[in-house]
Amino acid sequence: MKVSKIGIVSRFDQQDALDMVRKIYDEFNSKVEIFFSPKTGQHLGITDNCLPVEQMRNAGVQLIISVGGDGTVLRNISKMEDPLPVLGINLGTLGFLVDVPPEDAIKDIADVLKGFSYTERSRLSVYLNGKRLQDATNEIVLITARPAKILTFRIAVDESEIEDMRADGIVVATPTGSTAYAMSAGGPIVDPRVDASIIVPIAPFKLSARPWIVPGNSSIKVEMTIPEKEAALVIDGQHSYNMVENDLVTVTRAENPARFVSSSINGFYEKVQSKLS
Amino acid sequence: MKVSKIGIVSRFDQQDALDMVRKIYDEFNSKVEIFFSPKTGQHLGITDNCLPVEQMRNAGVQLIISVGGDGTVLRNISKMEDPLPVLGINLGTLGFLVDVPPEDAIKDIADVLKGFSYTERSRLSVYLNGKRLQDATNEIVLITARPAKILTFRIAVDESEIEDMRADGIVVATPTGSTAYAMSAGGPIVDPRVDASIIVPIAPFKLSARPWIVPGNSSIKVEMTIPEKEAALVIDGQHSYNMVENDLVTVTRAENPARFVSSSINGFYEKVQSKLS
Amino acid sequence: MKVSKIGIVSRFDQQDALDMVRKIYDEFNSKVEIFFSPKTGQHLGITDNCLPVEQMRNAGVQLIISVGGDGTVLRNISKMEDPLPVLGINLGTLGFLVDVPPEDAIKDIADVLKGFSYTERSRLSVYLNGKRLQDATNEIVLITARPAKILTFRIAVDESEIEDMRADGIVVATPTGSTAYAMSAGGPIVDPRVDASIIVPIAPFKLSARPWIVPGNSSIKVEMTIPEKEAALVIDGQHSYNMVENDLVTVTRAENPARFVSSSINGFYEKVQSKLS
Amino acid sequence: MKVSKIGIVSRFDQQDALDMVRKIYDEFNSKVEIFFSPKTGQHLGITDNCLPVEQMRNAGVQLIISVGGDGTVLRNISKMEDPLPVLGINLGTLGFLVDVPPEDAIKDIADVLKGFSYTERSRLSVYLNGKRLQDATNEIVLITARPAKILTFRIAVDESEIEDMRADGIVVATPTGSTAYAMSAGGPIVDPRVDASIIVPIAPFKLSARPWIVPGNSSIKVEMTIPEKEAALVIDGQHSYNMVENDLVTVTRAENPARFVSSSINGFYEKVQSKLS
Repeated sequence: MKVSKIGIVSRFDQQDALDMVRKIYDEFNSKVEIFFSPKTGQHLGITDNCLPVEQMRNAGVQLIISVGGDGTVLRNISKMEDPLPVLGINLGTLGFLVDVPPEDAIKDIADVLKGFSYTERSRLSVYLNGKRLQDATNEIVLITARPAKILTFRIAVDESEIEDMRADGIVVATPTGSTAYAMSAGGPIVDPRVDASIIVPIAPFKLSARPWIVPGNSSIKVEMTIPEKEAALVIDGQHSYNMVENDLVTVTRAENPARFVSSSINGFYEKVQSKLS
Repeated sequence: MKVSKIGIVSRFDQQDALDMVRKIYDEFNSKVEIFFSPKTGQHLGITDNCLPVEQMRNAGVQLIISVGGDGTVLRNISKMEDPLPVLGINLGTLGFLVDVPPEDAIKDIADVLKGFSYTERSRLSVYLNGKRLQDATNEIVLITARPAKILTFRIAVDESEIEDMRADGIVVATPTGSTAYAMSAGGPIVDPRVDASIIVPIAPFKLSARPWIVPGNSSIKVEMTIPEKEAALVIDGQHSYNMVENDLVTVTRAENPARFVSSSINGFYEKVQSKLS
Repeated sequence: MKVSKIGIVSRFDQQDALDMVRKIYDEFNSKVEIFFSPKTGQHLGITDNCLPVEQMRNAGVQLIISVGGDGTVLRNISKMEDPLPVLGINLGTLGFLVDVPPEDAIKDIADVLKGFSYTERSRLSVYLNGKRLQDATNEIVLITARPAKILTFRIAVDESEIEDMRADGIVVATPTGSTAYAMSAGGPIVDPRVDASIIVPIAPFKLSARPWIVPGNSSIKVEMTIPEKEAALVIDGQHSYNMVENDLVTVTRAENPARFVSSSINGFYEKVQSKLS
Repeated sequence: MKVSKIGIVSRFDQQDALDMVRKIYDEFNSKVEIFFSPKTGQHLGITDNCLPVEQMRNAGVQLIISVGGDGTVLRNISKMEDPLPVLGINLGTLGFLVDVPPEDAIKDIADVLKGFSYTERSRLSVYLNGKRLQDATNEIVLITARPAKILTFRIAVDESEIEDMRADGIVVATPTGSTAYAMSAGGPIVDPRVDASIIVPIAPFKLSARPWIVPGNSSIKVEMTIPEKEAALVIDGQHSYNMVENDLVTVTRAENPARFVSSSINGFYEKVQSKLS
């Protein structure tokens, strides 16, 4: 299927990202209709066709081009309830979600506009005391808000308690997030084809605490059980919420996955090898 | 469905295991037909109804009672191409596959004979240079045969190379095996409902080496790439084979799972908590 | 040497700690001169002999009795430039620095007052941009002040750069602190007789990051190198400071060690075994 | 002090090592007296001045040039009761004990012959049931002789029992060995100026098992406590002994350290950075 409408989102605090957006615009403006996120449009002095990313699907946009790093991709996916496929142009350092190096951007976009396939990646839906927050593409992190003050969590998977955990925090990640923060906390690498969620304690007090791999459709409940402690709940490193005693976080699989445009590069294993070794 | 034929297998180097078998025989002999593995029968002086465990299914046996520890369960399952459901009576120390403590044996067996359900657990089928070996319920371990001599493996998942690994060895485990040897080697705990295999390096030279979680239906290939080194291939801690340079081990999901009779006790999480903390 | 003057410090937010102080006072008031930290005195309605713990050495106090948990001990030691020997009465849960259980308090204090020995434990002196902060008995922690935002540190030991580390934070601990926060972060157990400091990354981005054991008399420099990030510098879990870009923390061995009154219980290994296993 | 007598040891199963020895011989034969280990001499067709390395000190040799990898250095040091300083020419891949790359060999040796300094590195002396074995420069490893069969050890430091450990094995390493096998087993990096020994379990059954850092002058006792198991005791990856039930291994600091000729390159931290990152 030929592409007729695309959206562009980008970092706007980095001149090279804005330059790249300009270049893409100049190159493809005559071939497809291009929409911009309002902030990106504003930084480029473009006023037509500016539209919040969450409204792009309704406007008939078929794919999003994200110019920046993993953070740009994550932030924009989190705005879409049913995410459009994203193609990431990498202007950062290391990125698992941005496949295209800047020098290949024009050529790769040209290819994609002729027709593209995409892969779906599960997301997590997150509730704080019953109130739904943003879906997570990588992970949610619960972490002490007072550095070096240990927290106590009660964690249950599908109503089975797995552990009363004392730790600085806890990560609940998708396979996509297994190569991001969950990995720093000591989690395994999980092939995105595996239908699972990953629970990893951060600096656990109990030496025997281990990462857990649980079914992707599990309901994971995390409750803070210690009085007078505060924690932050952080979604994809982008959105932050405060948690206090007895607050309950519930995590399940989101209805709609993230979608990533397939690029010339990369299976999962090749990418892990090139990024991590 | 009421049970009419059962098989009993046991350790025969431990008097209390043989005593337990005798007790089960005396209690249930008048109610169901009981078959014995030849060695167990021989140690009890029973000559009737002795049958290799691999022939019990054809003889109409509906479930196996295993008296001993995890090793007894693993060894007997590995003999059956299409394993009968197993109920484990625990006469060892710590066991994940033996749910029934000796004091509950008679009562629990009586309950089970009125009708039972079972859970299925994936097994791995293992090929050494194309020759099929025993299926693994817990794991296969490739490990240096000369202590402290490092090996080099080339590991591929579904034809994608994941890593050239220098290590003392490597574990490929099922979720069932995630709480056994894979855990000592540093692997995560994997809920048996997750359809996945676990790859864990043992004492890897490269500090960044991590456990991998891959789809349960993957084909995992491990090749030894260093000349003049020898390794052992060990299945479920029970069966050992030698490996030399260029030997290729292929691991896939076995057609037939292990089956465990559900007992009054415990879900997976309760069991992990009670065994490991 | 018989003891004639003691100091008592305690938690004052816990009635059982105050009750214990009262009991000690009633029991020993006629035998030795007893000084109180002002807050403890105030909560007990005692106005005589109240003295900040940092002035007790000059007043001739020979040892401090600390009633509470490890935090009470750490907080009071940190006030003393040349710490008096401390005997910890344990009213908390788990404590490495509080040897005496409440039921043994009166008897053990009576023994100690007849004469006592003590062990010395190295402390760390800490400078933030050249300004001296409190000495650390357990550890200093540098940790991101915005949860889940990774920091970058440049770490040098005696002018040799050891690593540019990307991590949530970093711990620099004494052997005494090796069984406290450094352990949760993945550090080894270090016998307090070893003259060394321990550097442990917290949730490091680079999988190969390892704990380092460096000479006890090393000068350890940690510099935050990423702009627009904030970190907290926390000493013994008690004192907190903000850090911004280019702030430099220098850690060396303090001139004066912590001193712990030897009690009937325990060598180091027995204590680790009883606390951690 | 100008050097007048040197010894050369080398691998003799690698032509490039023998070529390098020949080159060194041709270059320096007229300037200093050169001794060869018998095997090296034999492979080069040299019959004069061949002398077992353990007799070189008495013959007035002032330093040893080792051509090969870490293994060559370790094997030759282990032959000397009071080791001569060693300069390692690196013909292997990665080496912590061989500082000089082949292309710098002639120049560096010329420099060293004008006078040199060296650093001392502690070694471990090892007793098996009271019988002294070779001293270890890197480490001793106790490891199961039957792959994947777990062992049980009783470990004591200066008569204090630290742990009854169930594991595949155990490493006792010097700081020099902290970047070798002990690191693969999960140990920390230890600055060689720290006076300590490192105890690291290999694939421990108990998840909470940790590396221990103990005083360098400790007496470390390791006893195998499980019947019918066999283990190997391996010194520096070079010398192997069998161990059975109740065998007792005692490790203390050796009287004489290893000595390494200081080369133009590198402090410890630079070397770790260049080798491991």
